[in-house]
Amino acid sequence: ASDRLLGHSSTQSSHRLLAYSDALISIIATVMILPVAHTKMEDDEELRQSVQLLLTTKIAVYLMTFLIVTVAWAAHIRLFQVIVRIDDCLALLNLACMMLITFLPYTFSLMATFPENILGILLFCGCVMVIGVIQSVIVLYAFSRPFLLSEHVQISENQTFYKHHILKVIMRVPLMCLFASIFSFIFFQLSYVLLAIVIFLPYISQCLKWCRSKAIGQVDESPESMLFYTYLPNEPLSKERVEAFSDGVYAIVATLLILDICEDNVPDPTVVKEQFGGSLVAALQVYGPEYLAYFGSFATVGLLWFVHHSLFLHVTKTTRFMGLLNTFSLAFVGGLPLAYQLTHEFPRNSRNELEAIQISCVIIFFAGIFQLCIWVAALYNEQETLHPYVRYGGREHAFMLAKLALYPCVALGTFFLTCILSRFSASIFHLMEITVPFAFLVLRLLVRVGLALLRQIFCPDRSDLRT
Amino acid sequence: ASDRLLGHSSTQSSHRLLAYSDALISIIATVMILPVAHTKMEDDEELRQSVQLLLTTKIAVYLMTFLIVTVAWAAHIRLFQVIVRIDDCLALLNLACMMLITFLPYTFSLMATFPENILGILLFCGCVMVIGVIQSVIVLYAFSRPFLLSEHVQISENQTFYKHHILKVIMRVPLMCLFASIFSFIFFQLSYVLLAIVIFLPYISQCLKWCRSKAIGQVDESPESMLFYTYLPNEPLSKERVEAFSDGVYAIVATLLILDICEDNVPDPTVVKEQFGGSLVAALQVYGPEYLAYFGSFATVGLLWFVHHSLFLHVTKTTRFMGLLNTFSLAFVGGLPLAYQLTHEFPRNSRNELEAIQISCVIIFFAGIFQLCIWVAALYNEQETLHPYVRYGGREHAFMLAKLALYPCVALGTFFLTCILSRFSASIFHLMEITVPFAFLVLRLLVRVGLALLRQIFCPDRSDLRT
Repeated sequence: ASDRLLGHSSTQSSHRLLAYSDALISIIATVMILPVAHTKMEDDEELRQSVQLLLTTKIAVYLMTFLIVTVAWAAHIRLFQVIVRIDDCLALLNLACMMLITFLPYTFSLMATFPENILGILLFCGCVMVIGVIQSVIVLYAFSRPFLLSEHVQISENQTFYKHHILKVIMRVPLMCLFASIFSFIFFQLSYVLLAIVIFLPYISQCLKWCRSKAIGQVDESPESMLFYTYLPNEPLSKERVEAFSDGVYAIVATLLILDICEDNVPDPTVVKEQFGGSLVAALQVYGPEYLAYFGSFATVGLLWFVHHSLFLHVTKTTRFMGLLNTFSLAFVGGLPLAYQLTHEFPRNSRNELEAIQISCVIIFFAGIFQLCIWVAALYNEQETLHPYVRYGGREHAFMLAKLALYPCVALGTFFLTCILSRFSASIFHLMEITVPFAFLVLRLLVRVGLALLRQIFCPDRSDLRT
Repeated sequence: ASDRLLGHSSTQSSHRLLAYSDALISIIATVMILPVAHTKMEDDEELRQSVQLLLTTKIAVYLMTFLIVTVAWAAHIRLFQVIVRIDDCLALLNLACMMLITFLPYTFSLMATFPENILGILLFCGCVMVIGVIQSVIVLYAFSRPFLLSEHVQISENQTFYKHHILKVIMRVPLMCLFASIFSFIFFQLSYVLLAIVIFLPYISQCLKWCRSKAIGQVDESPESMLFYTYLPNEPLSKERVEAFSDGVYAIVATLLILDICEDNVPDPTVVKEQFGGSLVAALQVYGPEYLAYFGSFATVGLLWFVHHSLFLHVTKTTRFMGLLNTFSLAFVGGLPLAYQLTHEFPRNSRNELEAIQISCVIIFFAGIFQLCIWVAALYNEQETLHPYVRYGGREHAFMLAKLALYPCVALGTFFLTCILSRFSASIFHLMEITVPFAFLVLRLLVRVGLALLRQIFCPDRSDLRT
């Protein structure tokens, strides 16, 4: 502990503050799936209609919240890569900042429900501007006490230059929000365009930059950009914080369904007495499908976490692009409990049930395929980003590919099977849920057998040489 | 990253698995406050009555869940202090274990709602027994691959002895549950007694042991108990995991109210049009108190986290007794959002509102006082458990005392003020909410002034000497 209390008695390592912030932000990012999940679906109504109703507002709110919160989180990472030590004052300022970030999802739901009312826009812009002011205060405070800064900045000669640069970067978004709130009084459609730019610009510019660098080769970094290395958007994300954020999302998503079950699925004693003749077992059998949904979604989320964990064990550096792919994967993971709940809400063999099962498969597929994409993106730059074991030709390369490809393949297979054998869709889906955990247990064996078979088929001579 | 992939390519550091487990367990521990918070209170009904109704079942369920989950968590810590490295198989087994732990709260609510039906008991005992079996499998698996064990066990000569001892400790609770489930068919009251013993025994024995050691001095540790040091209940808890668990609880509690707000407090467009003449601002003013409740509870939980963070920065070793006090503190923190929500749910100046405010003060008081108790307990053994700065006579001693005492004192003061000036109770409470964050900001200054004053009063000569 003595290394956590440095020099100044009031100075502390920022580790736990960051872990707490990560936990808060990951919960907030996934929370907006709850209004989606709690939308009542009538049995007589077609799923297609209610899904369309959902798609227009609630799912949009969920995805937008997820993206804007991850933008705020990325900014938070960058800020605390410059400020590596904290004191009481910074901790309190950071908490104030967190309080406003957790309020952002609500302003989004207001915007989605009342798109023509400017109150939602004004509230959102107000929050963002106050967050910007607090972050500027954090920067000014930290630069007034240089022992809080990272060593790189501490020993640098042009600290004030740094300070102004960081302040400029931080105030960019609040300034755009100020314009958006002013325009909202004149022509509110323009404000939405401005806000969309705020949310998507970092992602789009990142994608473009990545594509360009792949197309025309690595762009020379100017000496000036090297100077500001610690505050450029193409700087790698802290791997620890990406892991902490992902853990938070996986944990909250895995437990979302038990929240509902604990609250809604305890029958009323009088109902049990009157409708089920006092038999609790009979009363609980009504809820049977919901328990199944819980265990199914917990297992799927848990296994996706397991794949993520295995992948990041072998990742040595997280680029921004990998972080973006991770965000997309997590956004789909957040939708899983909803999809699983839907699969058990409709009568057996109805068209609604089939569609719900297919939606689940699509969500699992995308959650898995984006995890695979993280690895593929890492392979493009494998010298810097990956452990030798999982690079091309590494001894864990094939095994990692199998782990990452298992869920997308299974989801795709289930999807097409349910298209063909639509009458048995529920059975196929449940069979998939039960088989996959065991598949992970014996995966290493399967990969070895598969590789041996491939060697036997394609180059029997070399396989003989190897053994 | 190379140090995280040890020798065997499939062996991994257990750090992230433990962080994920901590996140899951902390969410589950706090989840059962939701059914309490969502109990509808009628305005015409007296709060006292509905609180009594709550107290009998839901709050009991919440507290029991919190305790049983922390017992499971402590067992998890002990297990993974022996097994320090994991592989894929252990990670999957651990996930299965987590899935069952997250199901425990539901069995508790069944027990509370249907105390005379044995189904709840059977489900609970079934879960615990399966958890025991999985943990035994984990132990057997780990001992069959000694490179997964902690070095202390790895180099030991009597590994099989260790293995049997650990298996015996693990199977104790499932065995008691087996008896409880058998007795439930004959005389179900006895099962509850058995379950209560299971839950409270570790705590009671710990308290007794601590009291005895304080009363008659340190008990000599037998050489045999030293041999099993890594699996005795009086062994210190991993400080990292106590922090991670506390962070999870604080984070989920801080965001509990925004979950509700995002779901329930977005008005329906048709309602706004018909009842408020299309004015969204007017419609949202109805929810005003709920926003206040959100910001109030977020600030209080955030500041309690801040105090906890400051305390644990200076803690070097967490004893089991400190962990127990921490659990009590967290259990009260979990009740905070509920209390804050109540304060704004009743008409102004009603008796209900006064009582709700007083309940909030009591909860804040206990959450704070148990944090203070952690420090007091640590001071008894300060050489081992505390950083020199905060020991008696350390330069941060008075400041730490002020930090820890601030919330209990303020809560107590507010409580008595509302008793005397019951007409202004709401204003006093809101004033308290606003003042406390600023009090924390200037606390260091206040402590210095206070100390200087004390010196001036009691020993003016020595203060002159010091300056």
